[in-house]
Parts: sequence; structure tokens; C-alpha cells
Amino acid sequence: MKKLINAADAVLAESLAGFGKAHADLVEVSQEPRYVIRRGGGRPGKVALVSGGGSGHEPMHAGFVGTGMLDAACPGEVFTSPTPDQMIVAAEAVDGGAGTLFIVKNYAGDVMNFEMAAEMLDGESATILTNDDVAVESSTHSQGRRGVAATVIVEKIVGAAAERGDDLAALKALGDRVNAASGTMGVALSSCTVPAAGRPTFDLGPDEIEMGVGIHGEPGRRRETIRPVDALVEDMFRAIQKEIAPEGEVLLLVNGMGGTPLLELYLVYEAVAKLCAKEGLTIARSLVGNYCTSLEMQGCSVTLTKLDAEMKTLWDAPVHTAALRW
Amino acid sequence: MKKLINAADAVLAESLAGFGKAHADLVEVSQEPRYVIRRGGGRPGKVALVSGGGSGHEPMHAGFVGTGMLDAACPGEVFTSPTPDQMIVAAEAVDGGAGTLFIVKNYAGDVMNFEMAAEMLDGESATILTNDDVAVESSTHSQGRRGVAATVIVEKIVGAAAERGDDLAALKALGDRVNAASGTMGVALSSCTVPAAGRPTFDLGPDEIEMGVGIHGEPGRRRETIRPVDALVEDMFRAIQKEIAPEGEVLLLVNGMGGTPLLELYLVYEAVAKLCAKEGLTIARSLVGNYCTSLEMQGCSVTLTKLDAEMKTLWDAPVHTAALRW
Repeated sequence: MKKLINAADAVLAESLAGFGKAHADLVEVSQEPRYVIRRGGGRPGKVALVSGGGSGHEPMHAGFVGTGMLDAACPGEVFTSPTPDQMIVAAEAVDGGAGTLFIVKNYAGDVMNFEMAAEMLDGESATILTNDDVAVESSTHSQGRRGVAATVIVEKIVGAAAERGDDLAALKALGDRVNAASGTMGVALSSCTVPAAGRPTFDLGPDEIEMGVGIHGEPGRRRETIRPVDALVEDMFRAIQKEIAPEGEVLLLVNGMGGTPLLELYLVYEAVAKLCAKEGLTIARSLVGNYCTSLEMQGCSVTLTKLDAEMKTLWDAPVHTAALRW
Repeated sequence: MKKLINAADAVLAESLAGFGKAHADLVEVSQEPRYVIRRGGGRPGKVALVSGGGSGHEPMHAGFVGTGMLDAACPGEVFTSPTPDQMIVAAEAVDGGAGTLFIVKNYAGDVMNFEMAAEMLDGESATILTNDDVAVESSTHSQGRRGVAATVIVEKIVGAAAERGDDLAALKALGDRVNAASGTMGVALSSCTVPAAGRPTFDLGPDEIEMGVGIHGEPGRRRETIRPVDALVEDMFRAIQKEIAPEGEVLLLVNGMGGTPLLELYLVYEAVAKLCAKEGLTIARSLVGNYCTSLEMQGCSVTLTKLDAEMKTLWDAPVHTAALRW
């Protein structure tokens, strides 16, 4: 295993320390328990948005803490759920007296621990569960579809609505709506290596890919031989189309898994754009880059979200975080 | 070779087409000859900033075209210099009547072709040659030090000065000053594969790294066994320190080579931050991410730039490009 680390068990503490220093104008980092909050903590009267999950998906979620997006993020160990105590302390640190909204990707450990935190937390809370991955119905770590890259879109849109003062019930409904309007499918060209494991999560032959891969390297729909990207993207596009039946305007997120050159991600964008044109869809908004990664995995995911006027306004609203800013 | 492409000879055209569509609000893309310019072309009275070089380093340079940075970028084939005709047509398309400033990384092909373009261009021009790579004195494709990640810093700072109306001579002097104040060193944990070549540029054993690697996979100072990141970063830091003798405030760029998880880049940031603290240096500004890449290479580079008050003001000035925005 070759990694830019000192020791497997120090990865998270040291990386988070660097993140905190690099973005000291935006965030505060706590190591015990581990969480990242907006500098200055909660805003009185504002619903607090709290997310989290296993590390290894950076910039998700700590990179989305800041104005117009998350109030707090709780990173677990790599590909491991954070604990309820992290969530509770983080939620308390950003409490504005208007309730807490948890944004949780659908994995058994995350669901269980965030549920426990919600029960133990004083004050009102609600949870948005993202499950945008259309590849498989259930998976290694999830009952039902996995939550993947559309979580970024949920966090951005709901974050903007929270910033303008929407209440907890409205935000919960909005987040559920964005999640339901979104579909994602991923493909892996290589595995990644969890530092504590020291070897690749799975093995792929020199010409093999995993179509429908999960962001922890979970199996997808099939192991197959690599084909031209237009063909791969068409399979991903059709799978998403079948689930969300897009019409009119969409948001397109072409997400790198961590080890894919930007040159290729824009090529994927072009492949999706050609399909959208053929289907009469307008890519009204888009995002291309590494947002919901799987360490150094090579591959990408494609997310489509059906847009309405409100979602567009909220997407365009100012955001100031380490990883998204406009 | 596993890549998200259709065919090696279509990579650039298709990727650039996707880039143009994804950022249609910011840029215009021409395929014949190949260049990217700011939407709307030149600004009357403003010096035009034109850069370029081989592709494979994305987001450099096309990702830096926009308000407050470049007016035009000319991408060559992967790791291949663009041609003078690309540069001339691009420069003409953004000409504001106040001269053209070329920003060129020090590689023989780029230097020769940009020189030719400058000679053939009507109107005044000047060239900033970046050569921040302290690893080796001369290299496979360069006489003298290579130009690498500090080019991003030069483009940002000089771009801000051009936007406020500085003249050609002042911008040239400023760019040379930023370049001289900067030092970079890189390390590779893996090679990358140029699509047209179909196989890795170089080979590394399972525990081997290339210390001082170039952004085209050129040899660095030595091939060695991987060590803890603190030790690797200390070697890079000392090499830079020896060349630029930093004091007071610095800008720190931790740059991913394309295939490195953000988790590790922040860990590298932490390692540099510890050394800076020890040496009494203040990291007054910083940037962490993939900015000057080498396709899917795993590894990173560290750049330090000695900052003065003017550079800080210009660094902080608004920028709106595909890859940098604030």
C-alpha cells in the first residue's frame, strides 16, 4: 500500500487537522469527539443541518460545511459510520433553537447511529435519508438503495433553504423531494485501498470494470469488460432514466471517484450531454469534479436531478464552503 | 489501459466539447484551431493573458479562463505543446489593444512555439516563463528548471492585476516576481498513462516512489522506498526552502497530481503546516486540491510562494473561472 500518510490509525486526525487549518476562516474542527462545524457555531432561529458518514468520500461532508450548506459534519473512520455521541455534540454546537435536520446516506450503520442520536437529542429533529443509487435494490451495507452523490445536491439545495429561514418541516419535505427527483449510477475502473486494511477492497482484471459500483467498493450490477465511454454512459443514463423519468430541465453531476482525471470527467459530461440532447432534456445546471469520492478509486458516477424553479433558485443561491463556493 | 474515453485520438476534442458545454456561461471553445477564451472575448484596454501547454494537467489551463485570471488557454494534445497558430488565433480573439502577455511553463516545445507566436503576432507582447520546480536543474523536456504548479499562482495574481488595469510591463514584472518567489517539489506514487501511448510512462515497484517527479512523469531526484508522509514532505520543504528562503508570510499550494484522495492532500497540508510553524513561517493563504495534474498520477506537489502585501491583495481579488472561484 502506497499512501501519503504517516500511519493508518493517524490518517483521520491528521487530515482533519490540516483541513481545519486550511479553512480556519470557515470551520472549527473538534477531534474528541470528531466533528466539523461552521465557524462561530449555530445561527439563532436557523434550522441546523447536520450530516456525516464514514470518511474516504472527501470533500463529502466536511468540505460542505459553511454558509448556505451544512452547519456540521461528523466524520467516522474510513468507510465506517460515525457514532451517536459525535452527532449529538455536533448538533448541540450548532443548535439555533429551530430544530436539527440530519442528512443521512442510506447505509445500515449511519441510519442506526443517526436514529439513536435523534432520539437522544433534546429538541426537535428530522432526518432526510438519501437513496439515489439506482444500480441495485439492496447492497452490502444497505437495506434498500444506497445514498451516494445526490447527497451533495440535497445538501446544497436544502442548505440554501435553511439559510433563507425555512422551517424544519419545509426543509425535510424539500430534501425528500430533491432526493426523489435524483438518480445516480457509478462505474469503477479500479478499487481503492482502505488504509487500515492495507489492500484493495476488491480486485479487477486489467480490462475489467464494475458497473453500478458503490462508493465503498460494493458490487454493482455486473463485472464486465471495459467499453467506449459512450456505451458505458448510455447504460448509466438509461438506468437513471428508468427510475426518475426526467423531463424538461435537469441538473447533471459528473462526479469523480477520486482517481479519475478531470479530462475524462468532462468527456463523460459530453457523453451525457449527447444523450440529454437526444431525449429532449436541458442540462440547466451542472457540476463536474470530485465531490463524493471513494478514496483513490478510478471511475465516476453520473447523477441527474429533475429540476423545478425553486430548486434552481436554491441551487444558485450563494454558498461558501471549502469545496463549493459561488 | 482502462480509461473513460471513446478513442485515444478523440479524447481532447470530446473532453473540450464537454468543458465548453459545462461552462458555457464562462467560456467559448474553438476546436479548429483549439483554444478556450473568456465568453465575449477581449476587454478593450485590458492586457490579454494567454497561456497554454500540453493537455493532461487539467484544470490547468482551460479551467483558469475567466474573470480575474486568463483570457485564453491553448491546449495541445496530451503532454504535447500547442502550436503557434493556436496561440496567435487565441491571442487575436481576446486582444483588447493593450498587448498580450503569454504565461508559459518552461518546456522546450512550449517555449519555442510561444516565442514563434509572439514574433508573428501583431502588436506588443511579453512572456512570463515559469520555472518553479526545484527538484532538478534541467530535465527531459526542459533546459533549466521546469514550470509546474506555481503557474496557477502566477496566473491568479497576474490575472487580478490585469483585471484592475495594470499595463503590460507592470504585469510582466509582477509575474516574474511571483515566479521567483515560488518553489515547488513533487512526488509520484504511481505513473500515469498517456492515452495515445496506452501504457504507463514509467514503472514503479510496489513500494517505490519518484521524489521530485515532473508533471509529465519526468525523473526527479531519486527513486526511493516510500516513507511516512512527514519525512517525504520534510525533504520537499527543505528543497524549496533552500531555493526561495521563505520568511514571514507564505502561500501554500498542496496540489494533487490527479489520482490522490483529498484526505491525503489535507494530511500533506498538516505536514507542511507543522514545518512552517517550526520555521516561524505563517501560511497566510492556501489552496488544496487538484490544480496542476498529471492525468491519474498518484502523488502531490508542494508549492510555497513568499507573499508581500500586493500579492495578497491580488490573490484575494475576485476570480470566476471553472476551477477557481471566489
